[in-house]
Amino acid sequence: MASEPVTLTALRDFPMVEPGDDLAGMIIDGLRRTGIQPRDGDVLVLAQKIVSKAEGRYVELKGVAPSARAVELARATGKDPRMVELILAESSEVVKYGPGVLVAEHRLGFVMANAGIDQSNIDHPDGNERALLLPEDPDAACAAIKAHLDAAFGVDFGVVINDSFGRPWRQGVTGVALGAAGLPALLNLIGAPDLFGRTMRITEVAVADELAAAASLVMGQTDAGRPVIHVRGMRWDAPARPAADLRRPRQQDMFR
Amino acid sequence: MASEPVTLTALRDFPMVEPGDDLAGMIIDGLRRTGIQPRDGDVLVLAQKIVSKAEGRYVELKGVAPSARAVELARATGKDPRMVELILAESSEVVKYGPGVLVAEHRLGFVMANAGIDQSNIDHPDGNERALLLPEDPDAACAAIKAHLDAAFGVDFGVVINDSFGRPWRQGVTGVALGAAGLPALLNLIGAPDLFGRTMRITEVAVADELAAAASLVMGQTDAGRPVIHVRGMRWDAPARPAADLRRPRQQDMFR
Repeated sequence: MASEPVTLTALRDFPMVEPGDDLAGMIIDGLRRTGIQPRDGDVLVLAQKIVSKAEGRYVELKGVAPSARAVELARATGKDPRMVELILAESSEVVKYGPGVLVAEHRLGFVMANAGIDQSNIDHPDGNERALLLPEDPDAACAAIKAHLDAAFGVDFGVVINDSFGRPWRQGVTGVALGAAGLPALLNLIGAPDLFGRTMRITEVAVADELAAAASLVMGQTDAGRPVIHVRGMRWDAPARPAADLRRPRQQDMFR
Repeated sequence: MASEPVTLTALRDFPMVEPGDDLAGMIIDGLRRTGIQPRDGDVLVLAQKIVSKAEGRYVELKGVAPSARAVELARATGKDPRMVELILAESSEVVKYGPGVLVAEHRLGFVMANAGIDQSNIDHPDGNERALLLPEDPDAACAAIKAHLDAAFGVDFGVVINDSFGRPWRQGVTGVALGAAGLPALLNLIGAPDLFGRTMRITEVAVADELAAAASLVMGQTDAGRPVIHVRGMRWDAPARPAADLRRPRQQDMFR
């Protein structure tokens, strides 16, 4: 909810991120460079790629040996068998596949194309092809970065890691939250009366996904020079919940 | 894409909307009341409910006679047979159903719970239960409102109508675009090189859905007093496309 205008500002001139970089320190520098004086409730949305890169989640494809199942799925989908092997290794379940498409449930519970494994915006040193896996534990990464930021500025931040997913029934990708800390990723409205005192039919809002989508608008897609977005003006009277709470339990999901 | 900060501002003290109201005129008044001087590229995101209300899309449930199929689906889902009848009348296909759940493809091509028909935030005069259908043609409604706004201020607006949908695999609803005018609802990045000159794997971004989600954060859910959100700072070098382009053709969709 917001009563003041909400502003989204890209941190200026964010440097390229390399494995082992101090991402929290880079964000602290970026806030100062952009001239932002942090306040309680400010949210920072981080592109998945920079978190994965700082964590060194690269895999060189030439070292990947595809299993028989990966070879079979590669044939059915037209994908590189080594990429399929990585997807299977990162996944708990293949949800759907077909020509050009492999939708899998990532071990973290996200259902997405290629289990979120990326080959774009990644440099290829010496011509070696690399893929970039999702962060090891996005909610934990958000909590760790939040702890650094809170300590540096003495305020209470929210932190979100976003990525772009496709979805059923609709064209185009949208920003989605992989991780969250310091805000209610899922906001419970159960029992809140609507304007006419009737109990709300809509019960839960995926606040972190909406923040992820809003930040994605400002990040753009081709310009990795805007991987951190500062959001000001949101306010919630609800306890913080991680992005893990956005995963629908398998037994409650009709679309498998 | 954005290089300046993006700001989202709720129009102040927006009045209740009644059937036949001049919604464009109310938005023009609201912009002035909020002290916003419109500029080229400003976007207005309108909650579906106010567009439906202005169009008078109410149906009194007591006048609805459920068909045999509606009675059968009502039994399977635990829903009011009259609501199910309305859902079927507005739909081209029932996609999934089960206890408490009826997912249908609306005649406009949106796949959503209850075909988007709403019983919340609707007053019930004389105790008569009413439902509110989606706008007749959301893209056309956006284009008509855009024409009024453009003429009133002499600038080039974008207009989006949003709603909150649930989705497979993830908890919580998020804002989604039902209609759009004056902006690329779907932004094509095919062929755009990424930072390292590699061709992008992500080809299309659902910009109107991301705007819808961002505005939803500012609208809130229980407070229908913020149904119009002004967005400033977005910029696209791409032709306008309607929200109809966000509907994935049935034959390209694996999740039916």
